[in-house]
Amino acid sequence: MTTAQRPTGVFISLEGGDGSGKSTQLKLLADSLKAIGHDVVTTREPGGSDSAEEIRKLILEGDADRWSPLTEALLMYASRRDHLERTILPSLARGAIVISDRFADSTMAFQGIAGAVGEDTIHKLHALVVGEHNPNLTLIFDLPIEEGLRRSGDTGVEQRFESKGAAFQEQARRAFLKIAESEPHRCAVVDARGDVADVAIRVMDKVQKRLPALFKNC
Amino acid sequence: MTTAQRPTGVFISLEGGDGSGKSTQLKLLADSLKAIGHDVVTTREPGGSDSAEEIRKLILEGDADRWSPLTEALLMYASRRDHLERTILPSLARGAIVISDRFADSTMAFQGIAGAVGEDTIHKLHALVVGEHNPNLTLIFDLPIEEGLRRSGDTGVEQRFESKGAAFQEQARRAFLKIAESEPHRCAVVDARGDVADVAIRVMDKVQKRLPALFKNC
Repeated sequence: MTTAQRPTGVFISLEGGDGSGKSTQLKLLADSLKAIGHDVVTTREPGGSDSAEEIRKLILEGDADRWSPLTEALLMYASRRDHLERTILPSLARGAIVISDRFADSTMAFQGIAGAVGEDTIHKLHALVVGEHNPNLTLIFDLPIEEGLRRSGDTGVEQRFESKGAAFQEQARRAFLKIAESEPHRCAVVDARGDVADVAIRVMDKVQKRLPALFKNC
Repeated sequence: MTTAQRPTGVFISLEGGDGSGKSTQLKLLADSLKAIGHDVVTTREPGGSDSAEEIRKLILEGDADRWSPLTEALLMYASRRDHLERTILPSLARGAIVISDRFADSTMAFQGIAGAVGEDTIHKLHALVVGEHNPNLTLIFDLPIEEGLRRSGDTGVEQRFESKGAAFQEQARRAFLKIAESEPHRCAVVDARGDVADVAIRVMDKVQKRLPALFKNC
């Protein structure tokens, strides 16, 4: 890795299927952390830096089969590298809390497992591109697929991935839970059912338990 | 690799610094091989398929430091995967000769060695994305840097890479020669000095020696 500065901030990623409510919860979590005095940077993947947003457009536009899963994973990791270099690492270096709507677990779930690229290939790519710059905490929003598809259908976001259908989303859901199980020190599963306020309470509970240092001056 | 068909054609790549004349020589070589009855597909990198050409635009537009060398290498390999899946492998499967203006050695030379990503990282990325689908023959066009920069300055191609300057180009030249030395079974160095007709004779000489089967029915 070429980045000389050692990060001192905290990196949180929010993961889960489409329509799991993570984007709404990201805003609420960011507001809560800002309210107690933290420097908070909210970002998203794919994208999160000017050039990575250009790659995002390439990834999300077009038909469901525009890119093969492996090509898509490479584009995701290209955008992730730019996002790390230009947004995440500089923000962590100045001590900020970075909260990203999706990060590498989405590539493992959607391209690696549901898309059949293979876990081994994604792990190797991850080691080359992200190295040790993993999130300090990853919240995995878990929701039955029917509810997620219904909710995301309301907003029409990420149409290309939704168009891959319920079986693909179900595989991705199981993949996220598998990731959470295999990395319990980093990941916490949030039950995303119910209304926004209820889920927000669950989110704050997980963050306070996992990252108590963020709250010590409150 | 997901491609089930075993290629039966011949894959030739042309490599070298900017202004080394490889694009001109590619056309002449393709014409010669077509003239003796071969099905010849000419292509290029970055690009070579509809979606890979979109990635090409992202890579080549903008300032010299728009992408870090590692992000650039990931974009190159994303476009290479699409190029392989959509253009190269289907053409080889039907028995064609595929001639590509640049392939993976350019990423090793420009991003891996001159750009300091590191040979090891590029080798690992190559193994994940290209696997065993390497060219049967790679012609490396070698030319003193001053002559290459002067020639390419005439046409204004690939401005973003040229703008990295002569020292970068010199490192890339040495990198190409190192690749040729390390893989003599695949690579042949062509002296690219002199006029087009002289270089074309050298090219044909290398191709006839390395791939005699292409000429057995002449």
